[in-house]
Amino acid sequence: MALYGRVALIGLGLIAGSMALAMRRGGLAGHIAGTARTDATRTEALRLGLCDTVHATATEAVAGADLVVLAVPIGAMEGLAAEIAPHLAPGATVTDVGSVKGAVIDAVAPHLPQGVHFIPGHPIAGTEQSGPGAGFAELFDNRWCILTPPEGTDPAAATRLRTLWEGMGARVDEMDAAHHDLVLAVTSHAPHLIAYTMVGVADDLRRVTDSEVIKYSAAGFRDFTRIAASDPTMWRDVFLTNRAATLEILGRFTEELFALQRAIRTGDGEMLHAYFTRTRAIRRGIVEAGQDTDAPDFGRAKTRG
Amino acid sequence: MALYGRVALIGLGLIAGSMALAMRRGGLAGHIAGTARTDATRTEALRLGLCDTVHATATEAVAGADLVVLAVPIGAMEGLAAEIAPHLAPGATVTDVGSVKGAVIDAVAPHLPQGVHFIPGHPIAGTEQSGPGAGFAELFDNRWCILTPPEGTDPAAATRLRTLWEGMGARVDEMDAAHHDLVLAVTSHAPHLIAYTMVGVADDLRRVTDSEVIKYSAAGFRDFTRIAASDPTMWRDVFLTNRAATLEILGRFTEELFALQRAIRTGDGEMLHAYFTRTRAIRRGIVEAGQDTDAPDFGRAKTRG
Repeated sequence: MALYGRVALIGLGLIAGSMALAMRRGGLAGHIAGTARTDATRTEALRLGLCDTVHATATEAVAGADLVVLAVPIGAMEGLAAEIAPHLAPGATVTDVGSVKGAVIDAVAPHLPQGVHFIPGHPIAGTEQSGPGAGFAELFDNRWCILTPPEGTDPAAATRLRTLWEGMGARVDEMDAAHHDLVLAVTSHAPHLIAYTMVGVADDLRRVTDSEVIKYSAAGFRDFTRIAASDPTMWRDVFLTNRAATLEILGRFTEELFALQRAIRTGDGEMLHAYFTRTRAIRRGIVEAGQDTDAPDFGRAKTRG
Repeated sequence: MALYGRVALIGLGLIAGSMALAMRRGGLAGHIAGTARTDATRTEALRLGLCDTVHATATEAVAGADLVVLAVPIGAMEGLAAEIAPHLAPGATVTDVGSVKGAVIDAVAPHLPQGVHFIPGHPIAGTEQSGPGAGFAELFDNRWCILTPPEGTDPAAATRLRTLWEGMGARVDEMDAAHHDLVLAVTSHAPHLIAYTMVGVADDLRRVTDSEVIKYSAAGFRDFTRIAASDPTMWRDVFLTNRAATLEILGRFTEELFALQRAIRTGDGEMLHAYFTRTRAIRRGIVEAGQDTDAPDFGRAKTRG
């Protein structure tokens, strides 16, 4: 028997599309109902067979659902929560997949009725592509999903949601929302802003042509452009809603960058070498933790003849 | 008949090792002589069959060579040039593979005798790994190699070197050394310093554990760690020798980052969205230019069942 009888996916982008495929792969949902803001996305989701039923409104999609997944930009969460709240089934679980947790809790929790379980979540997985067609069933395999259940969450509801994520291939961690937002500011939000900035600088510089930047991007810049190609709306909302933690990390980053710039300016080779040696170790940790391979794909994929 | 009768590779790391394999693949060198600073590297290069002969000194390696490739860290170039200069064959071509061209020219050119052609070069290819074992024959395929022949360079010698790089799979561009150093500051040197810095900040932050950083690295940070895992000695020398251009780009970067931080602080969502939309276009240009695929490997490689 399926873990949830009816799952409602609100928003049908990369993450929700991948969840639909991963739930099907695992036989985790009896019925998948979906909705999206635009007609084009709804039609595309139907064509791809992501959902059993596609609905014109979130209200229709959540009717009778025992799991509701809010997979819309963070800026749209509050309006959505207010809209669906009167239509949620008693005992249903509401979760989300937003990249910021504190702001989502502030936006959603006040609207939800008694007897509905709200367990925010964030799968640490994605690609730089967006839309339902970008989804694939394996997206969450061996990736982490962080749940931030508020104090007093029903343990059975939390376990059931954790089981769903594990069934979709993910490893599940729990922490409080504020810590999540700090951790993600370091591992994701600050790096994204930095990548966006560097790509913007390259585009602005009049003495180096765009064509030169593009041709010689294999030299490091390529990885920045991949990050900076992510969905603009989602990322605008991330920065506006995880403002304090992101600005704190960027402040630390700037301070550190100034120290390294100073070492370059003064010719302090020892400081630079020691710094670069230390950062190498982190990469080894990531490879060992299985979050990447050590196959060299900076520059190009390695293909031995 | 081979393009060069005897090629001397001075330094046997990732680039020289890959050149040896690519030259063999293309039948471009009659004899490949190599040398490296440490006994371990020389032994490893012999074991891998990279060279026909491996020599204890650069002086021996360059004897009778019609092409000498300086593939050592930039800081070692001047001493090396002084050492080999008296032993270079008349009419030989000397080139290098350093990531900075102005500083290499300043270090090497004054030592070379009349009748030897000096044509600096820089293949825009690499991985975050180093050492002779990291080399592979396909490293340069469809990558760009920039040559910066000084004014008055013998056209036949330049054409011959260009033909070598094309035979190793590369596309060749020519520009002056100062412009090369600015272009690379944008596409490579500044991005590397930024990635090193962000990885350093993550490591320093006491409230987020290393284990958390590593587990959740798929969220963008992973690409930074790949860049920041590059060879510390090589990168120290790059920053010390391309100081002016790197500091100029970092100055522009900081200015731009402050503007984006300000937009976050003041809640200027329109500015952020417009900025992020613009940077997306550059990514598309890189994919179209064939320097990357649009397969999403941010997060994980896509595998459809």
